[in-house]
Amino acid sequence: MFKDTDFITNSKVPGPTKEEIRCLVISKSQLKKEDEVLEIGCGTGGLTLEFAKRCKKVYSVDKNPDAIDLTRANLIKHNLLEKVELFHEEALNTLKNIDKINMLVIGGSGGNLLEILEIGSQKLTSEGKIIVTAILLETKTEAISKLKELGFSVEIIEVNISKGRILERGTMMYAQNPISIIYTV
Amino acid sequence: MFKDTDFITNSKVPGPTKEEIRCLVISKSQLKKEDEVLEIGCGTGGLTLEFAKRCKKVYSVDKNPDAIDLTRANLIKHNLLEKVELFHEEALNTLKNIDKINMLVIGGSGGNLLEILEIGSQKLTSEGKIIVTAILLETKTEAISKLKELGFSVEIIEVNISKGRILERGTMMYAQNPISIIYTV
Amino acid sequence: MFKDTDFITNSKVPGPTKEEIRCLVISKSQLKKEDEVLEIGCGTGGLTLEFAKRCKKVYSVDKNPDAIDLTRANLIKHNLLEKVELFHEEALNTLKNIDKINMLVIGGSGGNLLEILEIGSQKLTSEGKIIVTAILLETKTEAISKLKELGFSVEIIEVNISKGRILERGTMMYAQNPISIIYTV
Amino acid sequence: MFKDTDFITNSKVPGPTKEEIRCLVISKSQLKKEDEVLEIGCGTGGLTLEFAKRCKKVYSVDKNPDAIDLTRANLIKHNLLEKVELFHEEALNTLKNIDKINMLVIGGSGGNLLEILEIGSQKLTSEGKIIVTAILLETKTEAISKLKELGFSVEIIEVNISKGRILERGTMMYAQNPISIIYTV
Repeated sequence: MFKDTDFITNSKVPGPTKEEIRCLVISKSQLKKEDEVLEIGCGTGGLTLEFAKRCKKVYSVDKNPDAIDLTRANLIKHNLLEKVELFHEEALNTLKNIDKINMLVIGGSGGNLLEILEIGSQKLTSEGKIIVTAILLETKTEAISKLKELGFSVEIIEVNISKGRILERGTMMYAQNPISIIYTV
Repeated sequence: MFKDTDFITNSKVPGPTKEEIRCLVISKSQLKKEDEVLEIGCGTGGLTLEFAKRCKKVYSVDKNPDAIDLTRANLIKHNLLEKVELFHEEALNTLKNIDKINMLVIGGSGGNLLEILEIGSQKLTSEGKIIVTAILLETKTEAISKLKELGFSVEIIEVNISKGRILERGTMMYAQNPISIIYTV
Repeated sequence: MFKDTDFITNSKVPGPTKEEIRCLVISKSQLKKEDEVLEIGCGTGGLTLEFAKRCKKVYSVDKNPDAIDLTRANLIKHNLLEKVELFHEEALNTLKNIDKINMLVIGGSGGNLLEILEIGSQKLTSEGKIIVTAILLETKTEAISKLKELGFSVEIIEVNISKGRILERGTMMYAQNPISIIYTV
Repeated sequence: MFKDTDFITNSKVPGPTKEEIRCLVISKSQLKKEDEVLEIGCGTGGLTLEFAKRCKKVYSVDKNPDAIDLTRANLIKHNLLEKVELFHEEALNTLKNIDKINMLVIGGSGGNLLEILEIGSQKLTSEGKIIVTAILLETKTEAISKLKELGFSVEIIEVNISKGRILERGTMMYAQNPISIIYTV
């Protein structure tokens, strides 16, 4: 895994997804080397880079131009740009123009989660998987309900992680905000 | 319970202890109206005020003069000053000069936790109780081990609470740092 | 607070709501002595007894007859039966027949959450409050969305608590399942 | 990662370490293909198998004969036995007889944590790492304090994960017990 500090950041762009969450997403994805991944809402590029390092091709989309620039900068920094195609547009647009993918990863849906899941599921190969990371309560229930409706078998974990700072007077734990990972199996 | 926003705060003083934690501390304390409480490390005064509202007398000590001033300001604001005696000194000093108390509450020990527990336990009435709130890992294990050594029956809970902000796009959960409550039963 | 072990239990009835959660619910409810409370889904009676101990009147309903019997047994055990009226029926029925209440507490809705909130909100006094405890993800988002629609200002906390067992070899923490409290303010 | 259900289990042996925790341990370990790992307290073999799949050699020790048998059975099931040497003895014994290792992983120390860390640290290559998983509060503080004393730079995360069961009536979250990972960096 990359470290959180390995990424160039920008206050106008959320992320990067914390190292521990990237680790769990990659694990739940059961990614294969030959996979092609579409990631929606790439933000700082944390997950984009993790996928790019491990698979054949990543398509990353974000409607925030700063996110695209930042993801590109991080890809260049870590020498992974050639593995990734970046799209600065609405995710639904990218989805419509894309051919088959092995995995759909949704980090932010811009309010179009249901449509993205609907269309995205049609672009998946027969063994394809969908992974949603959710920081909003509503994203969790919408993703679960829609994925069930689309015929997927779905699992969810909620992750609460605290990280210690080892100070002179003792070890102080700092909480990261809770995040859920919803994934098809 | 007071709300977190009911307290005057000061960036030089930790606290107030979050509403939910104050609630659990008061519950675990099984406080009675006639109780006299010694609180060590009063900080902003969050717990001082909760105890003062519910018992006969609170003695609050902090070695940070800003904490004493801030606790006093909060007591005045909520009209509870007459129930509380404030001590700006080392906790061990207050402890040595105090007579019997029904409850010892430790929010911060300034590195003297073991001595404070040792001497504090001698000042407790026969049914007296000790409660420690801990944000450092070391405080938890030291408190448990010392209280056991002193012959108390001890319990501990670890609390991870997230609070929602209900935004236009959904409900975002924000984590509070984990905190433990160690208490004799 | 009652201890979890203060309650008679029955494997056919969920609960009691854990002590720490009862504590937080009572705190968030800002209950007053003169309040009349309607509780839906009383289960073992954990919250029923806490409210009964602190307010004027509690109406408790559950469609599971074992829950009604168990809550009654616990009320008798703790000498609180005279404060509580028990209803073995659909919550919507109780709601329709009830006059004004100061507080609506929903621990289980039997799938009728939206209607219960809709009708329940009409039975509230002008300062009345609604509290929902949720163990299902869907309950959280439905409660928040419906309460907002009904014009309430809503807050939510998610609570993850672990309790220690102090063994010979050290202190082992056991997690309670996460639970959320949604409440109007 | 293996799934939790990929392992043969035995009620007399703890584990396997949950999938999510194995995932985080492997990530924090920054394991390399050529690494030799010593694992103390292998239990069901969950971590043994994950390391065996990814590195050159694993030495696994447990003083519980059932744990050794179970780990062997799991290694055979997943065709990894040739990568692993099993020791049914006190960890200190294995440590004394072993040459250099790249990584020391401690899942259970049988009460000898400090000595194990002391001697283990002498067996590490210059870039070697130590990882401790802790379910006891005391293990966390002892590991941190000893590793600091031995001159390591130490980090800790505390992990609280809940897993959903998607039922007819909604998604119910079940908490796993909290676990900490302490690791040198």
